[in-house]
Amino acid sequence: MVKEYLLAPGPTPVPPEVLQRMAEPIIHHRAPVYEKILEEVREGLKYLFQTKKEVLIFASSGTGAMEGAVTNTLCVGDKALVVEGGKFGERWANICKAYGVKAEILSVEWGQGIDPALIAKALQADPSIKAVFTQATETSTGVLFPIKEIAAIVSRFPETIMVVDAISHLGAVELPMDEWELDVVVAGSQKALMLPPGLAFAALSDKAWEFVGKSTLPRFYFDFKKELKNLIQNQSAYTPAVSLVMGLAESLKKIRKEGLENVFARHAKLAKATREAMLALGLTLYAPQAYSNAVTAAVAPPGVDAQKVVKILRDKHNLTIAGGQDQAKGKIFRIAHLGYVDKFDVIMGVAAVEMTLKELGYEVEMGKGVRAAMEVITK
Amino acid sequence: MVKEYLLAPGPTPVPPEVLQRMAEPIIHHRAPVYEKILEEVREGLKYLFQTKKEVLIFASSGTGAMEGAVTNTLCVGDKALVVEGGKFGERWANICKAYGVKAEILSVEWGQGIDPALIAKALQADPSIKAVFTQATETSTGVLFPIKEIAAIVSRFPETIMVVDAISHLGAVELPMDEWELDVVVAGSQKALMLPPGLAFAALSDKAWEFVGKSTLPRFYFDFKKELKNLIQNQSAYTPAVSLVMGLAESLKKIRKEGLENVFARHAKLAKATREAMLALGLTLYAPQAYSNAVTAAVAPPGVDAQKVVKILRDKHNLTIAGGQDQAKGKIFRIAHLGYVDKFDVIMGVAAVEMTLKELGYEVEMGKGVRAAMEVITK
Repeated sequence: MVKEYLLAPGPTPVPPEVLQRMAEPIIHHRAPVYEKILEEVREGLKYLFQTKKEVLIFASSGTGAMEGAVTNTLCVGDKALVVEGGKFGERWANICKAYGVKAEILSVEWGQGIDPALIAKALQADPSIKAVFTQATETSTGVLFPIKEIAAIVSRFPETIMVVDAISHLGAVELPMDEWELDVVVAGSQKALMLPPGLAFAALSDKAWEFVGKSTLPRFYFDFKKELKNLIQNQSAYTPAVSLVMGLAESLKKIRKEGLENVFARHAKLAKATREAMLALGLTLYAPQAYSNAVTAAVAPPGVDAQKVVKILRDKHNLTIAGGQDQAKGKIFRIAHLGYVDKFDVIMGVAAVEMTLKELGYEVEMGKGVRAAMEVITK
Repeated sequence: MVKEYLLAPGPTPVPPEVLQRMAEPIIHHRAPVYEKILEEVREGLKYLFQTKKEVLIFASSGTGAMEGAVTNTLCVGDKALVVEGGKFGERWANICKAYGVKAEILSVEWGQGIDPALIAKALQADPSIKAVFTQATETSTGVLFPIKEIAAIVSRFPETIMVVDAISHLGAVELPMDEWELDVVVAGSQKALMLPPGLAFAALSDKAWEFVGKSTLPRFYFDFKKELKNLIQNQSAYTPAVSLVMGLAESLKKIRKEGLENVFARHAKLAKATREAMLALGLTLYAPQAYSNAVTAAVAPPGVDAQKVVKILRDKHNLTIAGGQDQAKGKIFRIAHLGYVDKFDVIMGVAAVEMTLKELGYEVEMGKGVRAAMEVITK
C-alpha cells in the first residue's frame, strides 16, 4: 500500500472539490456560462490580491507573467534594480537581460533578508531606474522580503515602479496590493491557490498601467493591454485554460469562505510550528530572521546531505518535499506549508523528517520535533 | 433536465478517462514518477507528429507556441511570407509585426484554398524570405491548405523554413511532419488531442533548429532551445501544467490504440457525413473545394442569420457549435467533428441544425440531412 504525500513549495496539494470541478465536462469559453464563471473569478481574484484593479489571467506558468511584467512596462535600454537573493531573483535578472533591460543587481546573501535602505540608496543614486523587481517570498531560500517597506520607498519615486513576484506568497502571507502601493503583483496557480500549475496572474496599479502605455518592448501572448480589454468583457485574448479556470472558481470560493485573515493566520501558525520543530531537533533555519510563512528551509545537520533527506523522504516515506537549489543544494531541505495544508500535514512532515534524520545517523530524541510543533499548534 | 453537447472547433469534448486522470492527486514535476510520464508522453507526441524530432511542450494556449515559432527562428527585419485566408493567418502576421519581422501577406479569399504556385512565385521573386507561415486547417473558415505541396516548394529554398499552424489539424487530418519536410509544426491541446486548453506544442526540423541558432529575436518563456535541453532530461524549463500533462499521457494512449490511420479515417468519414448533410439541406459549404476534415463551415441560407442558428442551438438545444468571425460573422456556422467525436455526435449535430433552421423559417424536409449523414456513415 503506497500513500503519497506532498509538502513541496509548488505544486501543492489540490483539494478534492477543486479536482472534481476540473473534471467536469469541458465548456466553451465563448459561451455565457463561461463568462459568468469568469466574472465570479474576477471578483475573487480582486479579493485575493486586495486590489480594486483587474487581475489578468494567463494560461502559462508563473514565469510567463513575470516575463509580461517586464515586457509590458519597460523599453530597451531601461534600467532596473533587481533584488537577487535566490533562484527567482536571478529569474528577474535573466528576463531583463533577454529583453535588453539593464538590470542592476542588488545582491543579497541567500537566506538573508534585505535592508530597505539599500533600495532607497540605489534609487537616490540613480533616479533613472524604471523598476524595482523583487520576490515577496523567495521560494528557493524561504526568505520573506520587506515588501511594505520597499514599496513605501519606491512610491516616492514617480518614475519607478515596484514589481513583486508573489508566486509563492500570495494567499499565504499578507500582501495588500493597493494599501501597500505595489505596482505589479505576479502570482501563479500551483501555490497557495491550491490548483495545478498552468495559470499565471498579474495585477497592475494605475502607475504601472501608465508605464504600459509608454513601454515599447515586444510582446504578443503576454500582452497586458489586450488581455485587460478582453477580461473586462469576461473574455480572454486567446483560448483560456478552461478547466483550470473552473478549478480557480472553486478554490477562490474556499479562500473567501475561510477568509483571508484566517488563511494568513493558519499559514503563520503552521510555519511557526515547523520552525520550532526544526529548532527543537537541533537544526538551524536557512532564513533565521527574515522567514516566510509559505515555506521553511532547514539546514541539514553537519555530515548529513540534505539531498539524501529529500530522497529518503520520497523513496521510503512517499513524502515529497524540496531540496536546495544551486549553491544551497545538499545544504538545505524545504518543507512547504502552503495552500491546502493543515496542522496534521505539518505534524506528519516533521515526524517524517525525524525518522529520516535518524536513518541518516543523526541522533534525535524521537518525537521531540513533533512535540514542539504540537505545542505551537495547540497554543 | 439539461444535457450539454459540444461540437465547437475547440475546446472539444474530453473523454471521461482523461478527465479522471487529470483529477488524480497532483504530483511533483521534479519527481521520478513525473519524469516517467513525460518520457512516455514524448514518445506519444513523436508518433502523433510523425517525426523523429522532440516535440516541445508549453503551458500556454496554442498562440504561445505560434509566438515561439516566430521569435526562436527569425531576426528583426527578416522577411516572412504569410498565407492569410482567415482569422489565424492574421495571427501569424500580427505576431510577426509585434516582433519587427516584415510579413508579406499572401491574401487568400476566405473559404478558398491556395494555389501552391503562388508560394513558388513569391519565393522566386524574393529568395531572402526566411519563413513561410501558414495554417494546415484554417479554423475560421474550415479550409484545408495544401501543406504537402507548399512544403515541397519551400524545401527547395535552403534559406527558407516552412512553419505550419496545425492547432486545429494535428491528430485529425494527415500531416506527416518528417515525410513532408515541415520545418516547424505547432499544435494545441484542446482540439484533436481531446484535452482541455492549456498546452501548446512545437516540433522543429534540423533546418529549423539551424535557424534557432542564428535567431536573435528576444524570448524567455517560449525559449525553444532551453525547453529542448530540459525535455530530453524528461523535464521542463518552468513548472509544467502537471494535470494537463497527465491527461495528455492518457489521450495519447487512446490515439495510439485507435491508430493514426484510423483516427484520420474516422475524421474523414464524419466530415463527409456533415458536408453531405449540409448539402442535402440545400445549404452551401463555405469551403466548397478545399475543405478540412476537422471542421465544416456551412453558409446559412438566404434570410437566415447564422449567429441566430448558433444562439438557438445553444440556448434551446444546449448544443454548442461556432459562428463565423469577422467578415464571416452572421454568414456561416461551423460544426466541428474533431477529437473525441463519433458518428452519433454528427447525426445529433445535423438533427439539431435541421430543427433550428426550421425554427428560423427555413423550409426543410425534416430528417433529410440526417439521412444523408447516415448514408455516408453506413457506406
